[in-house]
Amino acid sequence: MIRPASSPNVVTLTSDFGLTDPYVGMVRGVILGRNPAASVIDLTHAVPAQSIDAGAFVLAHSYRFFPMGAVHWAVVDPGVGTARRALLLQTRHAWFVGPDNGIFALVLDRDPCLRCWVLDRTEHWQSPVSTTFHGRDIFAPIAALCALGVDPDTLGTRMTDSLPVGRSLSYEQRSDGTSEGCVVWVDHFGNLITSLPASLLSERRWKGLLLNGSVAPIVHTYGEARDASIIALKGSSGFLEVAVPNGNASLRLRVSVGASVVLVPDMR
Amino acid sequence: MIRPASSPNVVTLTSDFGLTDPYVGMVRGVILGRNPAASVIDLTHAVPAQSIDAGAFVLAHSYRFFPMGAVHWAVVDPGVGTARRALLLQTRHAWFVGPDNGIFALVLDRDPCLRCWVLDRTEHWQSPVSTTFHGRDIFAPIAALCALGVDPDTLGTRMTDSLPVGRSLSYEQRSDGTSEGCVVWVDHFGNLITSLPASLLSERRWKGLLLNGSVAPIVHTYGEARDASIIALKGSSGFLEVAVPNGNASLRLRVSVGASVVLVPDMR
Amino acid sequence: MIRPASSPNVVTLTSDFGLTDPYVGMVRGVILGRNPAASVIDLTHAVPAQSIDAGAFVLAHSYRFFPMGAVHWAVVDPGVGTARRALLLQTRHAWFVGPDNGIFALVLDRDPCLRCWVLDRTEHWQSPVSTTFHGRDIFAPIAALCALGVDPDTLGTRMTDSLPVGRSLSYEQRSDGTSEGCVVWVDHFGNLITSLPASLLSERRWKGLLLNGSVAPIVHTYGEARDASIIALKGSSGFLEVAVPNGNASLRLRVSVGASVVLVPDMR
Repeated sequence: MIRPASSPNVVTLTSDFGLTDPYVGMVRGVILGRNPAASVIDLTHAVPAQSIDAGAFVLAHSYRFFPMGAVHWAVVDPGVGTARRALLLQTRHAWFVGPDNGIFALVLDRDPCLRCWVLDRTEHWQSPVSTTFHGRDIFAPIAALCALGVDPDTLGTRMTDSLPVGRSLSYEQRSDGTSEGCVVWVDHFGNLITSLPASLLSERRWKGLLLNGSVAPIVHTYGEARDASIIALKGSSGFLEVAVPNGNASLRLRVSVGASVVLVPDMR
Repeated sequence: MIRPASSPNVVTLTSDFGLTDPYVGMVRGVILGRNPAASVIDLTHAVPAQSIDAGAFVLAHSYRFFPMGAVHWAVVDPGVGTARRALLLQTRHAWFVGPDNGIFALVLDRDPCLRCWVLDRTEHWQSPVSTTFHGRDIFAPIAALCALGVDPDTLGTRMTDSLPVGRSLSYEQRSDGTSEGCVVWVDHFGNLITSLPASLLSERRWKGLLLNGSVAPIVHTYGEARDASIIALKGSSGFLEVAVPNGNASLRLRVSVGASVVLVPDMR
Repeated sequence: MIRPASSPNVVTLTSDFGLTDPYVGMVRGVILGRNPAASVIDLTHAVPAQSIDAGAFVLAHSYRFFPMGAVHWAVVDPGVGTARRALLLQTRHAWFVGPDNGIFALVLDRDPCLRCWVLDRTEHWQSPVSTTFHGRDIFAPIAALCALGVDPDTLGTRMTDSLPVGRSLSYEQRSDGTSEGCVVWVDHFGNLITSLPASLLSERRWKGLLLNGSVAPIVHTYGEARDASIIALKGSSGFLEVAVPNGNASLRLRVSVGASVVLVPDMR
């Protein structure tokens, strides 16, 4: 046991399962069966289906509001049933459980991986294991046991030869001076969070951000914008965001997760 | 007290209340007032309004992922305020609380009723009892007390003369060789679960499953199907399911809960 | 410490945040960090954006189903980041935490404010405090500490010179004998709850309730109405409600939260 005695018994859940089906309830049931005292908290289950970028964004943006040592279960898993690895990760702040497909990449950009295990100890899993629901049958039991303080070396095999899949949110800097990314999250208010790091803003002068035929000028604060105008600005997440003050940017521009966004240089 | 000391203090909730209104919160408040340490877990509150079949399906498909001895509160209750009985049931695996309208029938098909009580001890209920919200005023207090380990004989009167309403998901085998059932659940991915038991498949050769004018051929695995084709197969639930690999069968076929499905024999 | 030893460690949550984003999860994380044993229960996060009336209605209608001494966090906060005060209130039944914008007014109509504090002790807050998310950074920590039994005089400064913003749901009695209000809530079944107090009914004879060009006659019980007819009646909340028996009044009349409703006198 390498974990501090003060470690909290907390598991957060992030997925693309939705809340219509009983899937999240089943995951909680499996956790509870192994760890009856765990506090289990939903981050969101509204990640767009199979959008690893969206799941990575939500998780990286949220986990620091939970106690140190919490376990974060994150399952957006288009490769379920294939050879992709199942992982347990430890950083200085927290534990992470889920598929090795990049969903933890944004977290690890800021909070490096200290240790990592490949989940291969089938004795802890649900039996039988479904081929399509590792979130319930593999990741839930492991998250429950990790939150309970079980020695992680008994939950999987320590990885020493390869790193978890790492990739930041994808964007491309092109030779014509533009940078192209995509929308990774649309919040409840219709604001669009993009994959373009806000640090790009300081590199040169920009004309604005192009989405679905409209160019949103870059502003520094909401206060600079008129009501109902489309603006782009640095978001609290460190990425460029697009908003319509007192309006809904997603509805107005008719774009959703995955839509292309292009940062266009000012050529004057 | 007949219950094992190791009985878990767990209540699951299944209903057609949705999550927009504060109804589910009120149910949890009432449970908490009588049983502050209970773990209360939502299975789903997205059962289509008054669809007993859909509620029965979700519950039967989910309860085995919870600890033995958990209490399952299930309220899809078109007869609230009428003479339909209010029940507490015990099986070998779990306890069930809700109206006597067939919502527990699929569970009881597999996990027979050991004992059953009609809820008539008003001293445990909320006061006053609403005529339209027995989920909060009658079933929630009883679920809370049952999970706490209170003797069920103090919660209601033992039924010895009649059985709970039993009926499987409805389907009909017709003289022309077809079997007609309906869609009982549409999951988050648009897959359609039907009321037709998969055991029908072995009875003869079938042409396919007819829904809204389209015939879905029967396959054994997803791997047999091309992307975007409509297929029918045996689901993990034991019923026939209709899916569109990498697509959404509900949107594609424009069918939802209650739609007719007909298994058509191969006449060649 | 002025609170009874038997005080429950319960926090309820009411907001317009929705469940798509991780915002509610973050609020729960912050509460858990300060009060690991708290029972945290969602009332609803589907309050229409910035609708203080709707939030006030939901809260007033629900809090009595929770144990005495529970803490009710309610954040519908169009004035976040402005000079509006942040409050902790105590009534005979419960504690309330949120902005001073009238969201507690309906509660206080029935359950008067005993003591009130302005939240100004920054040492308890998240650091840094976001300008747009006081629900997480100010109200969540205070709710957590209040539920834990921390002396409220250490959480803020006692208000002695002014009252919390009070205003009932808005409606107007006009000189032509009509009373105009609005729809404050649309429930899952499409029933419309209005801001018109049911006590108006006893003042005179009424022709009915006018919404979007249709007049709903006043009835005493659902039983008086034919299926699919539009009716208005006294709701369990003490306000006039509009319903379509076995139908959906919101879809039928094409009205949602904020729509005008006019009680029209019978001039015969």
